[in-house]
Amino acid sequence: MVYLTRREHFNGAHRLYNSKWTDEQNAATFGKCANKNWHGHNFELFVTVKGEPDANTGFVINAHDLSRILKTEVLEKLDHKNFNLDVPELEGVLPSIENIIMLIWKWIAPHLKTCQLHCIKLVETENIYVEYYGT
Amino acid sequence: MVYLTRREHFNGAHRLYNSKWTDEQNAATFGKCANKNWHGHNFELFVTVKGEPDANTGFVINAHDLSRILKTEVLEKLDHKNFNLDVPELEGVLPSIENIIMLIWKWIAPHLKTCQLHCIKLVETENIYVEYYGT
Amino acid sequence: MVYLTRREHFNGAHRLYNSKWTDEQNAATFGKCANKNWHGHNFELFVTVKGEPDANTGFVINAHDLSRILKTEVLEKLDHKNFNLDVPELEGVLPSIENIIMLIWKWIAPHLKTCQLHCIKLVETENIYVEYYGT
Amino acid sequence: MVYLTRREHFNGAHRLYNSKWTDEQNAATFGKCANKNWHGHNFELFVTVKGEPDANTGFVINAHDLSRILKTEVLEKLDHKNFNLDVPELEGVLPSIENIIMLIWKWIAPHLKTCQLHCIKLVETENIYVEYYGT
Amino acid sequence: MVYLTRREHFNGAHRLYNSKWTDEQNAATFGKCANKNWHGHNFELFVTVKGEPDANTGFVINAHDLSRILKTEVLEKLDHKNFNLDVPELEGVLPSIENIIMLIWKWIAPHLKTCQLHCIKLVETENIYVEYYGT
Amino acid sequence: MVYLTRREHFNGAHRLYNSKWTDEQNAATFGKCANKNWHGHNFELFVTVKGEPDANTGFVINAHDLSRILKTEVLEKLDHKNFNLDVPELEGVLPSIENIIMLIWKWIAPHLKTCQLHCIKLVETENIYVEYYGT
Repeated sequence: MVYLTRREHFNGAHRLYNSKWTDEQNAATFGKCANKNWHGHNFELFVTVKGEPDANTGFVINAHDLSRILKTEVLEKLDHKNFNLDVPELEGVLPSIENIIMLIWKWIAPHLKTCQLHCIKLVETENIYVEYYGT
Repeated sequence: MVYLTRREHFNGAHRLYNSKWTDEQNAATFGKCANKNWHGHNFELFVTVKGEPDANTGFVINAHDLSRILKTEVLEKLDHKNFNLDVPELEGVLPSIENIIMLIWKWIAPHLKTCQLHCIKLVETENIYVEYYGT
Repeated sequence: MVYLTRREHFNGAHRLYNSKWTDEQNAATFGKCANKNWHGHNFELFVTVKGEPDANTGFVINAHDLSRILKTEVLEKLDHKNFNLDVPELEGVLPSIENIIMLIWKWIAPHLKTCQLHCIKLVETENIYVEYYGT
Repeated sequence: MVYLTRREHFNGAHRLYNSKWTDEQNAATFGKCANKNWHGHNFELFVTVKGEPDANTGFVINAHDLSRILKTEVLEKLDHKNFNLDVPELEGVLPSIENIIMLIWKWIAPHLKTCQLHCIKLVETENIYVEYYGT
Repeated sequence: MVYLTRREHFNGAHRLYNSKWTDEQNAATFGKCANKNWHGHNFELFVTVKGEPDANTGFVINAHDLSRILKTEVLEKLDHKNFNLDVPELEGVLPSIENIIMLIWKWIAPHLKTCQLHCIKLVETENIYVEYYGT
Repeated sequence: MVYLTRREHFNGAHRLYNSKWTDEQNAATFGKCANKNWHGHNFELFVTVKGEPDANTGFVINAHDLSRILKTEVLEKLDHKNFNLDVPELEGVLPSIENIIMLIWKWIAPHLKTCQLHCIKLVETENIYVEYYGT
């Protein structure tokens, strides 16, 4: 069993704001991340799959095929988007990287046939990232 | 003469859109960067000053003082902001990194007394950055 | 279950030297790291916690709260310190990154209430790092 | 149990080409990686071992000893080599990073006596890497 | 005048070998880089242009246009190639990064109309890079 | 004229403290950097030389020769040293990176015969570095 990881990146805007709370509560919890006119990040996405290398190709998965899946299933939906406004699946959900990474898992998993999705890592800044293993 | 560089970072949202143009012209020129609901970046700012090291401190400038100037004069105005909506000096100006870096120079230069501002570098993604020397 | 990682950094000086050994034995084992007048590093600390994202915040833990814990419990004790001389818990202990990381775990773990400490990673140089999972 | 990781790097040339296939099949699967005159990479190798820190040294393993093993057992065989032509163990095997990492494991594992080989990571480009845990 | 830099990357194989010299002389000068079956690198290319930001776009140059020029004029010729065998302009020339960077300048310069080519940087490993300003 | 840069790294300990000042003055100026038991860094050194590529080698300078000079003239004197105690040329001098970089220039310049020393860059942390051009 070998684990292969492919990196992609996308840019997006978001705002962390709980509409059930007052502005003061939001500022106390989310600080500058609650600013009303949005802010954004360069997100780095690392997707790790596992499987046996194929005898004919030496590949767990062809990295170009994996990249194509990520571009179609993730980047088309998130790149240069506003996560609060442009992503139907995030309606009513706080667009924290924790919630985004679980959504990315749902988008990718059904498209991997010959190998198994193992881990997703989503980097928001050089100081903060999240990882998700599907459960 | 020694050159000292201090790095800071900030996050912001922007949209590249020329209001004198049609949506089609904007899309043709700016691509996804024209998306109406904004996108954003992790910006890295490198500020380089030059001068003679002081005999008592060994410093061209105390890097903590330089950092304080950058936090007050730049990060207060740009961090977690929308560059199209929240920055008065950018009203009517396309918030490209080229235009932002010239504005940052104007903000910082008056506050450097004991050394000279030499260069600013502003990194938008791992693939694109700009530099400005004041003229 | 989502894993969130926060990075911090600190600088310190240390010396690898076993006082029960001769200088020759120390030099043979520790090389330049045994030099008597200390040397130092820029340490990078990655702390990973795991938990369910909170419904109100979308957070496993508020990264600012985690950062505050790390600053109070770790950086206050290690940043700009000499690990052989300034850290009571390391008295009589070789301040290798292996021993330091186990100490950092003890310092942090009691302060995490709403999520679970999963892994600590301590980077000494671009070529060497250690990880610890608490057992 | 502490995990220690040592990084090394090497450069090599290879070509992904299945000799049982036509050139067209190879091009369709491997793209530019099938080009007949080779291409190459800067490979980064991360080797992680696990064990109890030694009471006399504070080390899971002396990182210099680990580095010496990696230089003798891996870099001597792969650095500045052509993986299709210069590595007997890869004869008849597609020199994908998946197949190379399993070979590196076989080369290293017998030489670790006082600690246990846990994971190898092999980075081919900033966008692709593989990991192997020995099974 | 603002300076804009765009990064691209490509992989290639080469061999440093002076055919007028004996194998011993080549080994003494080029070491492992003279190995007969080639080795390779992940090359990073940074291209810096300078100019006045355009009033309508805020751009010195549209970074996507610059990227297109680099893909057509440089990557098409060097990516996944053998610099000794596949690049007509390098016939009879030692494919050192010094000689390659001067060739890249010649390829790019004629295609920049609205701004001026200022500097090219070519990174061969994390420890070695060259820069060229056109003269 | 091509510019070639070679990176090396070294670790050291230092303390920023002006012995003509009170402890309070030192703390006010140097903060934690004045701590009496030293602290340290992973220093990265980038040395840039310029010259015409040699017709026989394609090199401005053989990077291995440059590395040898840097190891002998700089790393032997600074690596794993205490800059306040172990470096005779820094006696009575504040070991700031500004003062260290000017000293490194003096050490290297006489050893470059076939090309010209252009710039030295010394990186102290990911947020601070200095550059020196010899005057």
